[in-house]
Amino acid sequence: MSPADVTDGAVEALHRQIVREAEQGGYRVNPDVPFAKSLVRGLLVNQARYGYISCPCRLAAGRKEADLDIICPCDYRDPDLNEYGACFCALYVSEDIYKGLKKPQSIPERRPPQGTRADGGTTIMEAPTTMTTTKATGFSLKYPVWRCKVCGYLCARDEPPGQCPVCKVGKERFERFI
Amino acid sequence: MSPADVTDGAVEALHRQIVREAEQGGYRVNPDVPFAKSLVRGLLVNQARYGYISCPCRLAAGRKEADLDIICPCDYRDPDLNEYGACFCALYVSEDIYKGLKKPQSIPERRPPQGTRADGGTTIMEAPTTMTTTKATGFSLKYPVWRCKVCGYLCARDEPPGQCPVCKVGKERFERFI
Amino acid sequence: MSPADVTDGAVEALHRQIVREAEQGGYRVNPDVPFAKSLVRGLLVNQARYGYISCPCRLAAGRKEADLDIICPCDYRDPDLNEYGACFCALYVSEDIYKGLKKPQSIPERRPPQGTRADGGTTIMEAPTTMTTTKATGFSLKYPVWRCKVCGYLCARDEPPGQCPVCKVGKERFERFI
Repeated sequence: MSPADVTDGAVEALHRQIVREAEQGGYRVNPDVPFAKSLVRGLLVNQARYGYISCPCRLAAGRKEADLDIICPCDYRDPDLNEYGACFCALYVSEDIYKGLKKPQSIPERRPPQGTRADGGTTIMEAPTTMTTTKATGFSLKYPVWRCKVCGYLCARDEPPGQCPVCKVGKERFERFI
Repeated sequence: MSPADVTDGAVEALHRQIVREAEQGGYRVNPDVPFAKSLVRGLLVNQARYGYISCPCRLAAGRKEADLDIICPCDYRDPDLNEYGACFCALYVSEDIYKGLKKPQSIPERRPPQGTRADGGTTIMEAPTTMTTTKATGFSLKYPVWRCKVCGYLCARDEPPGQCPVCKVGKERFERFI
Repeated sequence: MSPADVTDGAVEALHRQIVREAEQGGYRVNPDVPFAKSLVRGLLVNQARYGYISCPCRLAAGRKEADLDIICPCDYRDPDLNEYGACFCALYVSEDIYKGLKKPQSIPERRPPQGTRADGGTTIMEAPTTMTTTKATGFSLKYPVWRCKVCGYLCARDEPPGQCPVCKVGKERFERFI
C-alpha cells in the first residue's frame, strides 16, 4: 500500500481503536476530532512508508530499531503529558485539556539528539538517566516505583500517570512505593 | 450546578461509566441497579457540592486534600472487598456477592479517625502501617507485592485483588512476589 | 447442569467475553472462530463437570486446588505464547498468528509432570525455578521484572508480554527493570 492509498475508512477505524485503547488505559485522545484524525492519517502514511506507525510529527529513520522510541505512542508521551498536558503532536492530552479547562501549549522536543552515521543512518545516544536510590531499599533503580493507593497498581516512571489504568483514579491518589 | 439539579440522565451516564470501568479493572458493581443508582446519585450530589465525587456514605470535609481518601473509589474499597465482600457503601461487591452466592454484611468504618482542628477542619492521622520485610530482599516495603501467575501482573496491597485486572483470573492465582 | 446441556448460546456468550477480555488485556483469541468455539464448548463442559473452566486439552484431576494451574487461561499460556506463538490448545495466539503472518506449530506440554497419590489424586511437583539475581539489587526474585518504556507498566515473568496491557505497545518496547 502506498501513502496515497490511505482511505478515510482506515483513518476512521484506527482513530476509533486509538480512542478505545486510550480510555481503557486511562489516557485521553485530543477531543478535536478533525485534528486528531489528521494525525491518525499521518500514522497510516508512515505505516505504508515504513511498516510501522511512527510519529507523524517527527522525521523517521525508516529502520524499525532506530525508530522504536517514536512508534506511537512514543516513549516521550507520558513525560510530556505530565509536564505539558499533551504529547509532542497533541494526539494525546491530559484530562484538563480534554475537558477544555486548560489550553495546549507549545512542547519542546524531548527526544535525545541523534548522531549521524557514515551510512546516513542514525545512532541513538543514550539519554542520561538518573538512578533512583531509596533509603528503604539501599539499591538503585532507573525510575521510582509508584503505587495506586486504591488498587495497588505499580508502575515505574518519573511521575505517576494522570489516571490509574486499573481503577481510573487521578494522579493525586498515587504514592511513592520504591 | 446545585445538588437539586442532578438529573436522571446524569445518574444513568455515571452508573454506566462506573460499571464499564469496574468490569475492565476486574471489579463488580452491586447488581441491585436501583440501589447502585441511588449511590451514584449521592456521588453526583457531592460532585455538585464539593467538586469531586466523595463517598455518599461518609461526611466530607469539603476540602479536596482532606477528602482524597474518600473520593470514590475510596482507599478502603479493596481491603473491605477482601474482608467483607463489599465496600463501605456496597457500591462495589465481590464476585460471590455479585453472583448471589453470598449476602452483603454490615461493614465497620475502616477509615482512620480524624482529629478536629481549631479551624474546624480535619487532621488526617496517619494509619499505623506495618512494614513488610522479606528474607529474600532484606529491605522493607509498606505493602507486600503480589504476582499473577498467569500474566505476571504486579500489585502492592495487603491481599491480592479479587480478579487480575489484566487477565481476569481469580485471587487464588496470585502468589507473594516480594 | 450436565455437559450435554451446554447450549450454543452459552458458548456464544463465553466466546464473546473471552475475546473482549483478551483484547482489553493485550491478548488475541484464535481468529478461526469455529475452532475457538469448539474449545470454548470444552471449557463449558468442564465447568459443568468440575465447577471451573479447566483446560479442554488436558485431563483434569477434578479437584480445584490440584487443577488451579490449568484453569483457563492457564499458568502456561504466556510462556507458550512467547515461545510458540500459541497456548497449548491454540485458543490464545500471538499477534503474528492472529494476522496470518505465521502458522501455529505443535506445542509440547509445559506443565510439570504429576505424581500419582495413593488416593488416586495427584501431587503437584514444584517446577524447578531459577531465582533471578541482579547486580543492581543484590537480592533474588523468582522472575525478572519488565518495564514498558511507554507507560511504566511493570510485570514479573520470564519474558515481556506480546503487548503492554495498558498502552498496547509491542514486546520490543519493554526493558528489564529488576
